Amino acid sequence: MNTENQKHTHGGNIYKASRKHNMDVGDILDFSANINPLGVPEMLKNILVSNIGNLVDYPDTECTALKSEISKYLNISRQNIIIGNGASEIIFLLFDVLRPERVLIPAPTFSEYAEAAFKYEAETRYVKLTESNGFKLIMDDFINQITDKIDCVLLCNPNNPTSTLIATSDLLKLLKHAKERNIFVIVDEAFIELTEGCNNNSVIKFINEYDNLFVIRAFTKVFAIPGLRLGYGAGSKTIIKKMWEYKLPWSVNSLACSVGSFLNRAGGYMDKTHQWLATQKKYLYCELSKFSKLKVFEPQTNFILVKIQTNSLTSDKLSDRMAKKGVLIRDASNFMFLNNKFFRVAVKDAESNKGLLKVLREELGT
Amino acid sequence: MNTENQKHTHGGNIYKASRKHNMDVGDILDFSANINPLGVPEMLKNILVSNIGNLVDYPDTECTALKSEISKYLNISRQNIIIGNGASEIIFLLFDVLRPERVLIPAPTFSEYAEAAFKYEAETRYVKLTESNGFKLIMDDFINQITDKIDCVLLCNPNNPTSTLIATSDLLKLLKHAKERNIFVIVDEAFIELTEGCNNNSVIKFINEYDNLFVIRAFTKVFAIPGLRLGYGAGSKTIIKKMWEYKLPWSVNSLACSVGSFLNRAGGYMDKTHQWLATQKKYLYCELSKFSKLKVFEPQTNFILVKIQTNSLTSDKLSDRMAKKGVLIRDASNFMFLNNKFFRVAVKDAESNKGLLKVLREELGT
Repeated sequence: MNTENQKHTHGGNIYKASRKHNMDVGDILDFSANINPLGVPEMLKNILVSNIGNLVDYPDTECTALKSEISKYLNISRQNIIIGNGASEIIFLLFDVLRPERVLIPAPTFSEYAEAAFKYEAETRYVKLTESNGFKLIMDDFINQITDKIDCVLLCNPNNPTSTLIATSDLLKLLKHAKERNIFVIVDEAFIELTEGCNNNSVIKFINEYDNLFVIRAFTKVFAIPGLRLGYGAGSKTIIKKMWEYKLPWSVNSLACSVGSFLNRAGGYMDKTHQWLATQKKYLYCELSKFSKLKVFEPQTNFILVKIQTNSLTSDKLSDRMAKKGVLIRDASNFMFLNNKFFRVAVKDAESNKGLLKVLREELGT
Repeated sequence: MNTENQKHTHGGNIYKASRKHNMDVGDILDFSANINPLGVPEMLKNILVSNIGNLVDYPDTECTALKSEISKYLNISRQNIIIGNGASEIIFLLFDVLRPERVLIPAPTFSEYAEAAFKYEAETRYVKLTESNGFKLIMDDFINQITDKIDCVLLCNPNNPTSTLIATSDLLKLLKHAKERNIFVIVDEAFIELTEGCNNNSVIKFINEYDNLFVIRAFTKVFAIPGLRLGYGAGSKTIIKKMWEYKLPWSVNSLACSVGSFLNRAGGYMDKTHQWLATQKKYLYCELSKFSKLKVFEPQTNFILVKIQTNSLTSDKLSDRMAKKGVLIRDASNFMFLNNKFFRVAVKDAESNKGLLKVLREELGT
């Protein structure tokens, strides 16, 4: 794959869209980025405002206070935690530290992994997730693809853009198999808090049992703060120590660090989030499924993969037409193993979801 | 030099100091970081507060609005500008893109250059700035050190920690010499707005004339926002384009991007800054010069290099003793070619400067 070609083509670029279509950023309904539609929590906003005066100091390079809060939140040691400028910095930093030779990745998936592998000269091999199977990962089949030459596997759970979730029992099977063969396992859980089981679906609790495990996390999606840049990772103390050494000292700004003061008081916001998710994910999935020209894949998190089932339309054309009406969807044609019939939409609030369905009806009929 | 040993030992870590000496961060008088003591401008604070709601969107990966404002501010084209997570990201990114083989650097200077060179496998060679000469760079001598094997030179102007400034005429001599020999010239102007001539001392106006020139800049010091993480660079369109391609897409958070709305309305704040600088730089320099046990080097920007002239005391001991009293100074012993007699202090507001002098008198006598 030529990773250069698809470099940095993600969803969520409302600024580019506003320039292209000459629209105000505020008038755009963005279904291309998978962000919690409840928005930045009010309590967090207040914390950020009260910390603006502290911008006169360099950020704490060790992010001590934030690590302590994450440590409480997930019941892991501070020494198992690295903080970064979004999950993105964590991914690149991890590849820089690990320097794997051959990485096995189920696909379609988030393109940043292949970009990081490319940058650090690792070969990326893919295991194709099949459409007929709803793009679900069959763990035994995946394990069978792990040849002697593979020294690292990477799974996105739940997976972007397929919105599929791997069961913990399957991940444990993989971890055991990989540990016996000195293979490193990376699990990207950027959306885990936006699944029904929330942190129960996470393998972060196994980092001490499996020193070949690294878990990538972020507050980006769940607290709706992609603009703030805050990700983190959990792994063995050895890997974590090395990552702190390799990291640019101040990549995490001090307002991002202050998210720690919100983390363990986020209960109310999380409850509302799960109420919204349970209702709207189901609603949007059902409503999309009614379109005769669409095939919809059942979502396990806050976004839905959709396939256009008519010859006369492609996802790039559809996304372009909808963008002109102020609705951004994610043309998913540049994901490995997908084509120009696939697009992805975020699950948003009730009103926005209705707005999306309305514009889709205009474009596709019912 | 073993760059690993001195990795990330900079001034300004008040969090570490507060943990070590069991003090509140707010009670610490930090002379170890060279930040404008006027603090975050009020207008900028308001802009940041009003942008907190926008954290729900990913940052503009192209930083278009901010580039436009910088373009107006410095009268250069947007295509000559790269934005980064502090000057730090710009330095590392530039080395990643340039991949020089041998870099010539006057020293003592900021250690991050050698770290970036080390990371990207460039050999660093140093030209020693001599104490007897007040650590001033003699351009003809420096040019004479540029052998055939050197493909890049890097100068910090004004230089950290010596607070010396290179005249534009000298830099033009270097640029001409280097251009004829295909040598790249990097000038770090992180403190340029805190010199008396401000942007008049900058070589940024020559980037179109010299495509071998790259200028590193930041808002960190002048707007007192080290916690926000915002740096930028100016160079040829070719280099800048490549840097945007190499860069992590979202390393600059969206609040940092909003500094653009303040930049061209900063006149009042800049006037106050230069009034403070003219008065307090002179005051602190004169007062420090009165200490019989100190040798003080004349500053051209908002920090002062000082040498202890008594056998009984070293800079690490002095900085440790002062830290226990809540006053942080920068032990400068780990700068190349300096030793454990040197320390650096920031020029702060009148009251803080008096506080520094008081504690110094307690430790050193008059």
